[in-house]
Amino acid sequence: MTCKDSLRALQEILATGIPLAKHLGVTVEAYDGACLTLTAPIAGNSNYHDTAFAGSLNAVTTLAGWGLLWLVLTETDLAARIVIQESIISYRKPVTRNFSARCYKPTPRRIAQLFSALKRKGKARLELAAEICEGEELAVLFKGQYVVQLNTA
Amino acid sequence: MTCKDSLRALQEILATGIPLAKHLGVTVEAYDGACLTLTAPIAGNSNYHDTAFAGSLNAVTTLAGWGLLWLVLTETDLAARIVIQESIISYRKPVTRNFSARCYKPTPRRIAQLFSALKRKGKARLELAAEICEGEELAVLFKGQYVVQLNTA
Repeated sequence: MTCKDSLRALQEILATGIPLAKHLGVTVEAYDGACLTLTAPIAGNSNYHDTAFAGSLNAVTTLAGWGLLWLVLTETDLAARIVIQESIISYRKPVTRNFSARCYKPTPRRIAQLFSALKRKGKARLELAAEICEGEELAVLFKGQYVVQLNTA
Repeated sequence: MTCKDSLRALQEILATGIPLAKHLGVTVEAYDGACLTLTAPIAGNSNYHDTAFAGSLNAVTTLAGWGLLWLVLTETDLAARIVIQESIISYRKPVTRNFSARCYKPTPRRIAQLFSALKRKGKARLELAAEICEGEELAVLFKGQYVVQLNTA
């Protein structure tokens, strides 16, 4: 798959495979091979105080980590099931506008460890960080522990 | 406010103050003075693997903590702003059916500390735990750190 095809496929999964993602209004904005950016509008994701609802911020960062991992696996044509096992999120500043969650690809060494564990055991874990900034300020910091399990034929 | 009125008011906040809550299908199921239960359907909250989407599970547990705290404050006629500062969530088992998030009221001693801090500083923190079980098994364990700030006239 080309990078453009992968992004289109990821957008398709978000649009059709996860009903809530449609209501979050999540779109795949960019992936440069190092960072995946998902965006969502503040409209429909607000809370009682007219800032972004924590549940929406968590859902979009969770999807950013999941999507980044899906892209990393797709680049190597690996078919696997990815689930999140645990996450911690810190809401540091209120988010008041449309927002973007960025998830950065881990180091090549960490990716190599992931593939090595997958090859040996068919299963591996990876911690990914994602963030949401408003202007120059870090508003949300997320860390998720994902589990990857190779699909067996 | 009577307990019944409080629950109706909480349902109203969820229905009208947080647009995503409508899409989550969250309803206030019960509050017995010690535990708040929110429920949501699996339909509309599923993921790519046809189990509950982590983002939905997190959103409903976050709301269960927020709602419990809102009820505790409402019982004492305190008008305050409640926001979540940080949370950690563990997805232990897949959730495959309609689900309920339960948040338990902290000990009377912890509640007294909360009100004492609010009286002294107008602001206080409270950690709340919420859980989602499927059958007899714990599927999701959530801990959230909430901040309460009294509304100033």
